[in-house]
Formats: sequence, structure tokens, C-alpha cells
Amino acid sequence: MIFEHSVRTPSAQAFVDVTNLVRSSVRQAGIKEGHILVATPHTTAAVTVNENADPDVVHDLLKRFNKVFPEHENFDRHGEGNSHAHMKSSLFGACHPFIVHEGDLLLGTWQGIYLCEFDGPRTRRLIISILARDP
Amino acid sequence: MIFEHSVRTPSAQAFVDVTNLVRSSVRQAGIKEGHILVATPHTTAAVTVNENADPDVVHDLLKRFNKVFPEHENFDRHGEGNSHAHMKSSLFGACHPFIVHEGDLLLGTWQGIYLCEFDGPRTRRLIISILARDP
Amino acid sequence: MIFEHSVRTPSAQAFVDVTNLVRSSVRQAGIKEGHILVATPHTTAAVTVNENADPDVVHDLLKRFNKVFPEHENFDRHGEGNSHAHMKSSLFGACHPFIVHEGDLLLGTWQGIYLCEFDGPRTRRLIISILARDP
Repeated sequence: MIFEHSVRTPSAQAFVDVTNLVRSSVRQAGIKEGHILVATPHTTAAVTVNENADPDVVHDLLKRFNKVFPEHENFDRHGEGNSHAHMKSSLFGACHPFIVHEGDLLLGTWQGIYLCEFDGPRTRRLIISILARDP
Repeated sequence: MIFEHSVRTPSAQAFVDVTNLVRSSVRQAGIKEGHILVATPHTTAAVTVNENADPDVVHDLLKRFNKVFPEHENFDRHGEGNSHAHMKSSLFGACHPFIVHEGDLLLGTWQGIYLCEFDGPRTRRLIISILARDP
Repeated sequence: MIFEHSVRTPSAQAFVDVTNLVRSSVRQAGIKEGHILVATPHTTAAVTVNENADPDVVHDLLKRFNKVFPEHENFDRHGEGNSHAHMKSSLFGACHPFIVHEGDLLLGTWQGIYLCEFDGPRTRRLIISILARDP
């Protein structure tokens, strides 16, 4: 009831749509009702939910996020120079819960699940843990 | 063990207190101990927790959030012009977990649960999924 | 299966590493697989996950967060003058889920769990609720 996937991210900052990956793990587990957690065990990546119909939404989110948390600030002390990525990871969160209902992920029409890369490109781990409700 | 409610939001951006709605679903389910998820299946709305005693707190939160993520940025590409609302939805999150203890929501004295509207007014879905701990 | 700890925070804004506290509760519960919630029932504190190897990361996060959400804004109405702390609490979130796998918290190499103080110093409650997966 734990699934792990490797996800290759394409660039320094990117959202990779993992909705189908999560959905296929839920179906493989064969549960009808329950809660799942989708986690990425990294401190410069995250998991979030947003529109997956128009790719311009992701463009705008990354650009807005970067404007508010730019790659470098004069006061940054962390030697690796990726404090902006740590900030973004904490704000989006590295572990998100989802509802499973009638054998499928309960998502809205426009909702997709994204693995968020803020310090790539890299290969990231995506872990899905499933807890079924008693019948 | 899944409850769905419709929530009418009053304006373009607003926090609607849904604490009593969530609490009543928990009581109706009749569980004593467990975890619940409160979700809104939309990409321009969210769920959050904050003070519900002084309405000025919500005023300040919305104003601060709007200053950082204004309604329009020159670089926005998304044709619907509501990228700010997608950003806010991702940051607050569309699905939040809560603890149920001794038959009731475990919340602090000042904590209330809000459905956050960022692109309203609209009628939004609020879904509550309940997972009991084995006795 | 619910544990409560008191955590003393050292200053107005600080991240206190509670990873070992959470880990010890998971071991005390004796579960092998499941999901847990780590919550702080306050509206000016939060729970988050980030790097716990280099303390400069926390320095940079707090400074970046403070730049974006400064302690005072001219438009703030809330009489207690701590709206920035409410904003930060909502953004990081007061309740986070984690996966338990093979008897231990499933965290990445660099991930630590922090209790975030935004209006201290104070003594804060930290609550850990554990839901085991059926064997």
C-alpha cells in the first residue's frame, strides 16, 4: 500500500503533472474508499494541486512565485544559494492528502496533481501511501 | 462517511467560516477518534485555518495576500485573468487534514476553518471525508 | 494514539526542530505502517518541513518570509498587531500529514519537522495523532 515512483524534472523550475501516476497507484491498490498521501522526500521540491487544462496557468504561477521569492537575496546566508527553493518547498508543502471515493481519486474537473521542482533538473522520488476506510 | 455541502461565497475574494458545517458532519458520522479531510475541488478556492474571533484578521490576510499576489501582472499569460486566484489556491491548499478526538474536531480556542474564495462570488463544493481509528 | 507535547519557543519568530519528538511518539505508539497528523492548535504558529542540516536555511526562510509579509502594514486593522503572524500560520499550515513506514517516520535525508513560531516567545502545544494501516 506504498508506491514509489521516480520522476525526472525537465528544468530548474517546473511543474510535472503526476495525476495519472497517482491515479494508477490508487487503482493498483484496489481500494474503494480512503485517504492517500502523496509525498516527495526532498526540501527543494513540493506537491501541489492546480489547473492542468491551460499550461499558461503554470507559467504564471512560477513567474509570480519567482517575483515574490527571487533566486537571490542579499541577506541569504545558505551556501548552496537555493534558499528560494527551500522557501517554495515549505510553502507548497512536500506531502499532500487526497480523498479516494468510489475507487478513484476525488478531484475536481480542473484539478491536477503536480510535482513541483524548484532546484532542478533532477530525478525526484514520489511516494504514495494509501489508507483504506473499513468497509 | 463522505459529506458534501454547497457553500455560496459573497464576493470576489472572501473567507467563509465553515467550522460549524465541518463539526456537524463529524458529529453526524458519529466517530470518536480519527482523521478527516476537508476539500474543495476547485482551483481558485482553498481551505485554511485561522482566527475566527476578530473579523479584522481576515481583512488583513486578504489585503496582505493581494498586495503580494495582485490581480494582474504584466507577464500573466492565462486568458481568464485569474492567475492570482490559482496562485492563492495552491498556496493555501485545496484539501486540509484535521484530527477528531473525543467525538469532536480537535481545534484550538481561536482556530476556525475557512473556505477561501479567490474568484467569486460562486457556489463552491465542500467535501468532508472521515476515517475512524479502530477502537 | 494521541500524544501532546509542550514546546517552548525561544524568540518572536523561530523554527524549533521537533523531528525527534514526533519520531519518539511514533515509536511509542508501536505502529508499523500508517499516517500521522502533526498539529499545533494556534493561529500564529505552524508546522512545516525543511532542511535541518544547515541552520542558515531557516535564517534565510524567516528573513524572506518577513520581507514579503512584514510585521506591520498601513492597512492592517487587527488590534493585536500580529496579522503578519496569522498570515504566515495560514500559509505554512497548522496541521501536516506524514507517512509512517516500517515503524518509522518516512522522511527524506534532509527533511526535518519544524514547529514555526511567528508571535513568540511562547509555550506552544504540539499534537500528534496516529492512524495505523490494518495489517
